[in-house]
Amino acid sequence: MHYPSKLVEEAVNEISKLPSIGKKTALRLVLHLLKQEEKFTLSLAEALIKLRTDTTYCLACHNISDTSICHICANPQRDRSLICVVEDTPDVIAIENTNQYNGLYHILGGVISPIEGISPSELNIDSLIERVSQAPDTKEIILAISATMEGDTTSFYITKRLHSANVKVTALARGVPVGSELEYTDEVTLGRSILSRIKYGG
Amino acid sequence: MHYPSKLVEEAVNEISKLPSIGKKTALRLVLHLLKQEEKFTLSLAEALIKLRTDTTYCLACHNISDTSICHICANPQRDRSLICVVEDTPDVIAIENTNQYNGLYHILGGVISPIEGISPSELNIDSLIERVSQAPDTKEIILAISATMEGDTTSFYITKRLHSANVKVTALARGVPVGSELEYTDEVTLGRSILSRIKYGG
Repeated sequence: MHYPSKLVEEAVNEISKLPSIGKKTALRLVLHLLKQEEKFTLSLAEALIKLRTDTTYCLACHNISDTSICHICANPQRDRSLICVVEDTPDVIAIENTNQYNGLYHILGGVISPIEGISPSELNIDSLIERVSQAPDTKEIILAISATMEGDTTSFYITKRLHSANVKVTALARGVPVGSELEYTDEVTLGRSILSRIKYGG
Repeated sequence: MHYPSKLVEEAVNEISKLPSIGKKTALRLVLHLLKQEEKFTLSLAEALIKLRTDTTYCLACHNISDTSICHICANPQRDRSLICVVEDTPDVIAIENTNQYNGLYHILGGVISPIEGISPSELNIDSLIERVSQAPDTKEIILAISATMEGDTTSFYITKRLHSANVKVTALARGVPVGSELEYTDEVTLGRSILSRIKYGG
């Protein structure tokens, strides 16, 4: 591509390193920035720098945080007897958006995947076991991990590791999604939801 | 949305101000940046700041430039008798990528549009007329403006304004795009390309 300026080319190259942003989209963004007031770009750049240099990870749950203990772990209103184990930050955001959960979280940082070379030691599993053993208030561990083969492997591994701890281990309900039509639900999900059928009204 | 940190929220808000990037995409980009090394984000931010503070517009053609005269206008190899009039920078990039044109450019900054309130005085038309009158070498003005009603109005206006200048005014050929099948070409384009048929081989 023939760029009108070196600085435009550099900015396009940097932006197009981001996931799912190609050179054409990056150029469109660059031209947009050039049309806006200078402070628009400066405050964007400042927010990015601050984000990367000032955020840290919560020492307790490993979620992204502005402080060494995140606002969920530090909140005295949260139920400390529940720990919900998730893969990553977007899962915490998704569960928080439901307004159905008031316990704590534990972020694994991924799932066990031999294909991608991710072994249990690379995930925050040891720290979960330690956390449970040091917090006798913990009554239940909720495994909110993807319904994939890797996710199931991870759930199974964690359950085994928690065997000696005196906690209940539960997992998210699997079944027909709310609002979906039965005929379009995949067979595996439908089959499982017949086997795990619940008392109506419960 | 419940963000895990204020800094994440601020970064998401800033990024989602960009065109066609929503909050979900912005969050995905933020989480990606947090997973990369710090210098990845810092060099992105630096490129954005440099882009916005150090680029300027070429005094001759109004294209984005690192210097007061852009590298196309400053290039002695370019044919100074040709000026190609375009709407904006992406058009220059598109024409340069064809490797079929070796003249100069003039960027209008848009097209005349009464609906969007863009009058001729807001475009770089006066400077084009002045440029032509001050450069007696100019032999041909090529109008490479969108084939829309606004584009045609703009082309017509410029042609009228250039009437007194002793230059040839041409426009891009309109016809069936290369590689397209006849039956899928729209009727207006097909009709025009019959009327403006050319000698075969020419």
